[in-house]
Amino acid sequence: MIIIGEKINGSIPSAGKAIAERNEEWIRHLARIQEDANADYLDCCASVNVNELETMKWMLDIMQDETSTKICVDSPDPKVCVDALPFCKKPGLVNSVSLEGDKIDVIFPAIADTKWNVVALLSGEQGIPSSVEERMVNFDKLMEQAAKYGIAANRIFVDPLVEGLATNQESLLTFAAVCREIKAKFPQIHITSGLSNISFGLPVRKMLNMAFMTLAMQAGMDSAIVDPTNRDMMGIIYATDALLGNDDFCVEYISAYRDNLFGPVKA
Amino acid sequence: MIIIGEKINGSIPSAGKAIAERNEEWIRHLARIQEDANADYLDCCASVNVNELETMKWMLDIMQDETSTKICVDSPDPKVCVDALPFCKKPGLVNSVSLEGDKIDVIFPAIADTKWNVVALLSGEQGIPSSVEERMVNFDKLMEQAAKYGIAANRIFVDPLVEGLATNQESLLTFAAVCREIKAKFPQIHITSGLSNISFGLPVRKMLNMAFMTLAMQAGMDSAIVDPTNRDMMGIIYATDALLGNDDFCVEYISAYRDNLFGPVKA
Repeated sequence: MIIIGEKINGSIPSAGKAIAERNEEWIRHLARIQEDANADYLDCCASVNVNELETMKWMLDIMQDETSTKICVDSPDPKVCVDALPFCKKPGLVNSVSLEGDKIDVIFPAIADTKWNVVALLSGEQGIPSSVEERMVNFDKLMEQAAKYGIAANRIFVDPLVEGLATNQESLLTFAAVCREIKAKFPQIHITSGLSNISFGLPVRKMLNMAFMTLAMQAGMDSAIVDPTNRDMMGIIYATDALLGNDDFCVEYISAYRDNLFGPVKA
Repeated sequence: MIIIGEKINGSIPSAGKAIAERNEEWIRHLARIQEDANADYLDCCASVNVNELETMKWMLDIMQDETSTKICVDSPDPKVCVDALPFCKKPGLVNSVSLEGDKIDVIFPAIADTKWNVVALLSGEQGIPSSVEERMVNFDKLMEQAAKYGIAANRIFVDPLVEGLATNQESLLTFAAVCREIKAKFPQIHITSGLSNISFGLPVRKMLNMAFMTLAMQAGMDSAIVDPTNRDMMGIIYATDALLGNDDFCVEYISAYRDNLFGPVKA
């Protein structure tokens, strides 16, 4: 599993406060604990209305001073994403494109001849389509554009999008069906998700989030935008990978446990 | 999900001690907390070498005095299972038959014209077959015998058997494939499992047990022999049922939470 650490995101109140106060130590701490928890990418989302690029540069400089983990540049503004790329010491992940607005037109040409990867959401101009078929129509359009710019499938992290289970009983079933269709078409593609939307408005959200993770992985999801310091979630990820036959003799599971990444905290 | 409460089993050291000391209050307590946790059946396994039937009668009398939950009569000796049936106030579940020894010949005729259900293990004379094909051969033989005695599929709880993941990386994959084949042949049949064997010899067993539960349910398992007072496991079961589309608007999930069956303990 490719883990995108979600903690440095201004839309999370504690991180938003740290960003507003230019609390360098807080950003440094979040970067450190996520790298220590074996994140593959560190998401960087300023979530501010003014001076977003400047804020992002401040965050990126701290994150890259503290850690060597690749960055996931995250903004709803495709221009900010593109303008932030030069601030990164090495190619990472752009979060995100979709068929909405000019995202593709701005981002795809900027990363075409680079080693940057990209998150592609299956939302369209009208938001999240409810059916598998409509999401696959959006997927096909995205892949056509990617091909035009020579962006190979293995550089794309598709986010099939998760609706809340409280309002859509088919949410996981739709998500899983989309995963299976995508993987059948492009075995080398990556599938990722923020996933916690599944449990919106429901009690004991962690139970739904963990079971969703297992079921989504079974359907082909090989990445997630999660808190890598969430030991129960990481335990479920390592356990599911082992159960799905991806971990010979549970070597990864056992070594992650020995590295103190899940299970009871070791002193 | 049909929950078979596993706690009253002499092979669990604390329960074994209570049985050896004829500690009525302990048995009563285990029956009570499992009924309160919404178990559908209470397993009753003496796990003693001498006076097994007499011990089981002592246990059954206490359990049925304390609760009204159906009994799962559990013994490796088919004769003990059959002889214990008259001690039960209402039909429950016999645990278990398999192709080993004379289990079928003793148990099937005794329950043929009753409302008793039965657990059927897919082990053969040589233990647990490793392949899906061999387990299905055993399954077909069991179902032939069941048909001979007029025992309908919906009275049978097949246990496909779980090997430890540490020694067999394909354990879940084999289990799930067997579940799918069985459900395709007999949609009305039940599938159950003790499941904790999956994590034998591995650290943080609960992570593997929970992820196994989710994946097995996705493959068609609709029952489990578990500790119904294990709040995390029960949360995963309710969450998985909801994610799999079996719980309109998460009504069951929410009401189980309100009934204090999972999540943080309410005072």
